[in-house]
Amino acid sequence: MDVTRTLAEWAAETPEIASGLAQKRARHAMHDIVACMVAGAGDEGAARVRATIALYGNGPATVVGSTAKAASPWAALANGMAAHALDFDDNYLPGFTHATAVLGPALFALGEEIGASGRQILDAYIVGLEMHGAVGRGVNRDHYDMGWHSTSTVGCIGTAAACGRLLGLDRERMAAAISLGVSMASGAKVQFGTMAKPYHAGMAAKNAVLAAHLAANGLEARDVALEGKLGFKELYGGPNARGWADVLPTLGNPLAVEAFGLAPKLYPCCGSAHKALDIALALRAKHGIAAEDIERVETLVGFGNKRNLMYTDPRQEMEARFSMNYCISVAMLNGRVSLSDFTPDAVHRPEVRAFMPRVSMDACPQNAEGPDPTARLPHKVTIALKDGRSFSGESVWARGTIHNPFDEADLEAKFRDCCEGFLAPDDFAAVLAMLGDFAGLKSIRDLTRRLAFEAGADRGERFAERQTLAAE
Amino acid sequence: MDVTRTLAEWAAETPEIASGLAQKRARHAMHDIVACMVAGAGDEGAARVRATIALYGNGPATVVGSTAKAASPWAALANGMAAHALDFDDNYLPGFTHATAVLGPALFALGEEIGASGRQILDAYIVGLEMHGAVGRGVNRDHYDMGWHSTSTVGCIGTAAACGRLLGLDRERMAAAISLGVSMASGAKVQFGTMAKPYHAGMAAKNAVLAAHLAANGLEARDVALEGKLGFKELYGGPNARGWADVLPTLGNPLAVEAFGLAPKLYPCCGSAHKALDIALALRAKHGIAAEDIERVETLVGFGNKRNLMYTDPRQEMEARFSMNYCISVAMLNGRVSLSDFTPDAVHRPEVRAFMPRVSMDACPQNAEGPDPTARLPHKVTIALKDGRSFSGESVWARGTIHNPFDEADLEAKFRDCCEGFLAPDDFAAVLAMLGDFAGLKSIRDLTRRLAFEAGADRGERFAERQTLAAE
Repeated sequence: MDVTRTLAEWAAETPEIASGLAQKRARHAMHDIVACMVAGAGDEGAARVRATIALYGNGPATVVGSTAKAASPWAALANGMAAHALDFDDNYLPGFTHATAVLGPALFALGEEIGASGRQILDAYIVGLEMHGAVGRGVNRDHYDMGWHSTSTVGCIGTAAACGRLLGLDRERMAAAISLGVSMASGAKVQFGTMAKPYHAGMAAKNAVLAAHLAANGLEARDVALEGKLGFKELYGGPNARGWADVLPTLGNPLAVEAFGLAPKLYPCCGSAHKALDIALALRAKHGIAAEDIERVETLVGFGNKRNLMYTDPRQEMEARFSMNYCISVAMLNGRVSLSDFTPDAVHRPEVRAFMPRVSMDACPQNAEGPDPTARLPHKVTIALKDGRSFSGESVWARGTIHNPFDEADLEAKFRDCCEGFLAPDDFAAVLAMLGDFAGLKSIRDLTRRLAFEAGADRGERFAERQTLAAE
Repeated sequence: MDVTRTLAEWAAETPEIASGLAQKRARHAMHDIVACMVAGAGDEGAARVRATIALYGNGPATVVGSTAKAASPWAALANGMAAHALDFDDNYLPGFTHATAVLGPALFALGEEIGASGRQILDAYIVGLEMHGAVGRGVNRDHYDMGWHSTSTVGCIGTAAACGRLLGLDRERMAAAISLGVSMASGAKVQFGTMAKPYHAGMAAKNAVLAAHLAANGLEARDVALEGKLGFKELYGGPNARGWADVLPTLGNPLAVEAFGLAPKLYPCCGSAHKALDIALALRAKHGIAAEDIERVETLVGFGNKRNLMYTDPRQEMEARFSMNYCISVAMLNGRVSLSDFTPDAVHRPEVRAFMPRVSMDACPQNAEGPDPTARLPHKVTIALKDGRSFSGESVWARGTIHNPFDEADLEAKFRDCCEGFLAPDDFAAVLAMLGDFAGLKSIRDLTRRLAFEAGADRGERFAERQTLAAE
C-alpha cells in the first residue's frame, strides 16, 4: 500500500473543497486561533522565542505580539508558540493534534510570504486537517499514549502537506514535503508543563514551512517515509499502531473535519482535564455544591490523559495546566477556570493548595479506548460531600466538540476574553470583522498586519490586571 | 540519577580540556570536515538547501559554496548538508553519530556569529564529542538498530550542548539547551539513500544552534528530558537501551575521543561498508585478483550495518552509497572507491551492473555486538574465485579509526582530493595552512571567508571532470 504517495496525491490534486460544513469549521478555527495567538503572545515563553528569532533577521511574515517581522519559518515558530502558550487552542481528535496551533501559524506565515487569500488559506487548512487525521490515525492511539507529542510529530507531517498545498506542489514534490516532515517529526511529552510544550507547536509549524519550501526547491526524500521500513510507523507507531489500511479508502470521504470536527477549548489548560471540568462544574451548579462541603472529588480519565496530567503538586502556571488536582480545585472553589488562574501566584493560593489533596485521578487501562478517535470511553467524576451525599456524572465529549459545539457568540466571547486590551480598539474591531468573513479576505496580510502589537511578557498576570480593570 | 543535569553541569563547567590527544584529534576532524564541506557543497542536494535558505534572508554566517551569507541556524543547515552530502565525513563510534558533520557546521556558524577563536571552537567541539558519546551510549546500540539516524537524534542533543558551551551557558541554561535538543531530535533511517539523509546532519546542526540560542534567551524545558518518563530514553531507546549508569561515572575521564577516537573515511559511502571494502581491497591487492576471475564475494556485517545498506540494486548515486553490491563491485573492478564512482552514470556502468549479483551480504544477529561501542564483532569477506580458490579476511576496525589511523599526509591527500579545483589556489593554500594550526586561529571568520566560493550543483560529475583534467 502506497501511503505517502496516496496522501500526497490527494493533498496535491483534490479539487478545492466546497463543503459548507468544512468551510464553517475552518473559519471558526481561524477565529479561535487568532484569539489564542494574541492572548498567548504576551507569555514569557513566547517572548523568549521572539527574542531568539530576532537574532535571525527580518522577513515578510508578521510576528504576532511584535512590530518586527521575520522569515516565514521563524514567524511560524513564534506564532505557533504563542498559539499554544496558554493551552487554550483547539484539539483535533482524528490527528490527536492541536491541529490549528500548527496549521494556522504555518499557513499565516507562508500565506503572508506569497500573498495568499483567505480562501487559499482555508483550502490549505482543510487539506491539512485531513492530513493530520490520516497520519495520526495510522499511528494512534499508541503513538500518543507512548509519550509522543503528536501535535508536533503528526502535526509537522500533516502541516507540511498543508504548506505544500498552499505552494501548489505537484504530487511528487508533495510526497517529498510529507517525507521531509517525517524527517523533522519530534517532540516528547516529557516537556508537558514547561515552555517547551508550546514550543513544540511552533517547532512543527516552522518545520512544516521548511519542508514545503525544500520540496518546492527539489530536495528529494523517500516516498515511503510513512509506511516504509525504518520509517514513521515503524519508529514512532508502537506495537499496536493500526496503520493505514482502514484510513486510506475513506480519505476525504467524508472529511475528518466533517465527521469529527474540531474541539475548541473552554478552559486554558490541558484538554485531558476538560471532560472532568465540564462534569464537575455542571454537578457543582446543579446541586449548589460549596467547596467547603466537599470531602473528595474522584476523576476517571483515559490512559493517555492521566499521563498528560503529570503534576499532582504543580509549582507554577505551566505545570498547573497539566494538573487535575489544580484545575478541579479551582473549578470547585470558583465555579470557573479562567486565564487569570494560571499565574505563579494563583497556583499558590492557600485555599487552592488546601483543596488539592481532595482530588484524585484514575485511568482506564492502556488501549481500552481502541485506536479509533471515534471510540472513546467516558470520563467520570464523583463528588463526595462531607454530609455523605455523593454526585456523579460522566461525559464522552467535551464542551466545544461537535457534540456540544460553540456557537458564534461563544467564539466572540472567547475572542474578547483573549484580545481585549491587547489589540488597539480599531484593530480589534477590524480583526473580528475579518474573522467573520475569512473567505472574503483578499490577502492574509490585511489580517496579520493588525496583529503586530507589542505584547510584552509575563506569566499570565496580564489577564488578572485586565479583569480587574474591566470590573471597575 | 540526574542524567540531563549531570551532562549539563559537565558541559558548562568542566575546565578547558588541554589533552594533547583530544586537541590533535579535534584538529584533524576540522581538517577532514572542511574538505567534506567544500566537496559536498557542489552536490545538487546541498544546492537545493541553499536555494531554500536564500528565501530566509541574510546573516553573519558563511554558507559554504556560496557568496551569500545567512543567519547562523540556516548556515549550519546548509553546511551540515554539504558536510554529509557525499557520506565522506567521519564516524564517531561512541555516539553512533557522524559527529563532525553536525558539530563542525553548527560551531562554525555560531562561531562566526560571535567571532569565536579556533581555540574556542576546538573546546566546544571536544565538549560536544563527549556529549555525543554520553547521549549515544545511553540509548545505543538499540536506538541505531531500530532505525533511528543517531547522527540527527543524538547529534542534535550533543551538539546543542556544544553550542551552549560556545555561548558560555551556565549549568541551568545548558540543561535547557540539552532538553530542547531532545525536543528537536528526529531523523528516520528510511531516508538513507536520498538527499534527506545528509539533510539530517544539517537539520541537527541547525536545531542545535537554535536550542542553544533559545536556552540563552531563557526558554525553559524539563531538566529530566533524557532520563524522565516520556523522555528520550523511553521514547527513542528501545527495550535494550542500557541507560546512563555505566556512562556517567566516567564522564570525561577518559574522554570518549581519547578512548575511541574518530573514524575519518577513506571511501565516500556508508561507513557500514568500509570494513568489507578494506578487506576486499587488501585481498585483491595481496592475491592479485582480477575481477573477471571472481565467482562471488560474500560479506558479513553487523545487524545495523545491513539495515543501512538497503539497496541491492541502486538507481542513482545516493542509493549506491548504501549498497554493498555496488561498492564491492567497484572495488573489485577498479581497485578503489572514489568520489567519481558516485554519479548516476557511474552507477549504471555495464561492467559494474554485471558484477553486482556476485556480491552477497549477511549480518550477525541483533544485539550480538552488545551495547558498548568498544564491543564490536569483526566484519568478514570471502572472495571465491572461478578456479576454486577462496580468500578470506576479517576486520574489527576500519582504516581511519585509531587502530589504523590516518596521518597528516592522508589528511592532506583527502583535502586535495576534495578541494582542489573548487577553492581558488590562494584560498586553498590559506585554508590548508589554517587547518594545520587551527588552535592559532584568532577568529573562525578568517577561515570561513575563504570557503565562500560558487559551488554550482551536480550529482558528482565534477569529480570525474576534475580527475580528467588532472590526468591530462
